[in-house]
Amino acid sequence: MTKKLNVAVVGATGAVGSKMMEKLVERNFPIETIKFLASARSAGKTIEFNGTQYKIEEATPESFEGVDVALFSAGGSVSEVLAPEAAKRGAIVIDNTSHFRMDPEVPLVVPEVNRHVLKTIPKGIIANPNCSTIQMVAALQPIREKFGLTKIIVSTYQAVSGSGIAAIEELREQSAQWEAGKNVEANVLPVKSDVKHYPIARNVIPQIDKFTDNGFTYEEMKMINETKKIMEAPGMKVAATCVRVPVVSGHSESVYIEVEQETTVQEIFEVLKAAPGITLQDDITQQLYPMPIFAENEEATFVGRIRQDLDNKKGFHLWIVSDNLLKGAALNSIQIAEALLEDNIL
Amino acid sequence: MTKKLNVAVVGATGAVGSKMMEKLVERNFPIETIKFLASARSAGKTIEFNGTQYKIEEATPESFEGVDVALFSAGGSVSEVLAPEAAKRGAIVIDNTSHFRMDPEVPLVVPEVNRHVLKTIPKGIIANPNCSTIQMVAALQPIREKFGLTKIIVSTYQAVSGSGIAAIEELREQSAQWEAGKNVEANVLPVKSDVKHYPIARNVIPQIDKFTDNGFTYEEMKMINETKKIMEAPGMKVAATCVRVPVVSGHSESVYIEVEQETTVQEIFEVLKAAPGITLQDDITQQLYPMPIFAENEEATFVGRIRQDLDNKKGFHLWIVSDNLLKGAALNSIQIAEALLEDNIL
Repeated sequence: MTKKLNVAVVGATGAVGSKMMEKLVERNFPIETIKFLASARSAGKTIEFNGTQYKIEEATPESFEGVDVALFSAGGSVSEVLAPEAAKRGAIVIDNTSHFRMDPEVPLVVPEVNRHVLKTIPKGIIANPNCSTIQMVAALQPIREKFGLTKIIVSTYQAVSGSGIAAIEELREQSAQWEAGKNVEANVLPVKSDVKHYPIARNVIPQIDKFTDNGFTYEEMKMINETKKIMEAPGMKVAATCVRVPVVSGHSESVYIEVEQETTVQEIFEVLKAAPGITLQDDITQQLYPMPIFAENEEATFVGRIRQDLDNKKGFHLWIVSDNLLKGAALNSIQIAEALLEDNIL
Repeated sequence: MTKKLNVAVVGATGAVGSKMMEKLVERNFPIETIKFLASARSAGKTIEFNGTQYKIEEATPESFEGVDVALFSAGGSVSEVLAPEAAKRGAIVIDNTSHFRMDPEVPLVVPEVNRHVLKTIPKGIIANPNCSTIQMVAALQPIREKFGLTKIIVSTYQAVSGSGIAAIEELREQSAQWEAGKNVEANVLPVKSDVKHYPIARNVIPQIDKFTDNGFTYEEMKMINETKKIMEAPGMKVAATCVRVPVVSGHSESVYIEVEQETTVQEIFEVLKAAPGITLQDDITQQLYPMPIFAENEEATFVGRIRQDLDNKKGFHLWIVSDNLLKGAALNSIQIAEALLEDNIL
């Protein structure tokens, strides 16, 4: 990678945006120029990137002139308006919001799983999948390639950072209120823009994103629909229950799968050991299994607690953990950009 | 209930024992005499019950002379030795530990589900099931009676109080350490007597109880085996993944079931509305669903988030929450004693 790129980051001050900046530096992403764009409200503030201060500019259609790659993480409504404007001006957009994910003309990419779809980018926009989807498909794809995969039932244990910096602050404040025996105030979770808010400290909330008409939440439907799209498996059976837990960063998932071809836990161990981006943590004699506090700031997706179902030889249970701000968001976005460079698309 | 009983409480100072005492008073359990028994270490201390101070006596076989009903909650090794001694002296033992649960001669009882097995108590010992099992079978039995039940896959979100008072204290201390930016010390969870300990504050731990050879933990095997025993359904397919979360009291469960006979969410609503001990909390237009902080100190088992599976008309997803120290332990034990009285067994 000797080519250097002109990069724009939209939404750099958010929980995901700041991790994108970290990863651009850590991974030596080849930057010729970089600019930081935000709403008029944040424009004019300064932001530090790799030791240099930058002024945040107001994001307008013209901001994307001369930009090669634009990383969007400023909410669906910003992406809706500005991602096509960036693409029109020749930038390739990597969008971290849900806005374009199910658009049939927008590739939805986890590089380890479906990098080949990057060959065609009809709208100049690539979508980064939902955080809880990414780590699950990253862990299941190697198993699927070897043994086939017909069914997934997942229950999630999702960290508050998936709801942004305000949710992290709220967990901290509620914990302090709780310790002090004060009333616990809730204003952010489960969904800032929904009607009711519930405490997350010392609680779990079985609602992430709003409800759809079929009783599943949008988060659950994202896991179901995005998994089928990324795996190119419209007939795969997928069900999800998404739950918020009082963890800062690191989503955990209890996953039941059914494979096509009989196999063993030992064979799944071998497949996962060889899989890119996956760290197997599974040794019950050492109490070794993935946990979110140890996954925080790590790039890998951790897999453990792998058990064959006691009633179905083709059924397996797994426990999958990853940092939702990294592989679940910022890291996967940067990995998409790296894949574009390696494949000479950028 | 005019008959009054001589009661012994073994392990009254524990998390479950103190709730047993609360429930005996609240529910006006007909007590003639009551005594509080413990190890030699705790003997001599005083304990308050219903406004009177009692001296804790050392539990010996002779302590149970003249006792009608003995409530045990002092660990499996205490029950192993003293429950048969109490039974030998004519007491009916209601044991909250796991020691006798799978003994074919010991009824394992959730009164709403299998009260009829109380007719035969060969050893004079009745076992109170595992906390996470009780709330699940209480919620599923009404559905099973109406529509049949062939399969259960459950992922739990279990509160720290299930590991006793020391675990509650540890969550509190770790939270304070975490807020202060100090090192977080772990000495109790996941299992006090296991080799490694992990923080629970801001974490989830996919281990409850020790591991068995098949990769499942004892807690998971308890849910699997006890469910089949209570429901008298050895061929039912049951799988469990048990996870500890930083909640004080109130276990939550994400449960997938398959029924025998096609039905609808609306019909399941009707069945649960009429079920004893169950409170339906399911209205997505009002963001109404069960959560552990609102279940604490409540006697009911709360059920919500009921959805038909999108791929299987006989598949349903549910979210079940109950106070693990009450319906999951102390309350269910007292309800067993009440059933014995009502059925003239005591």
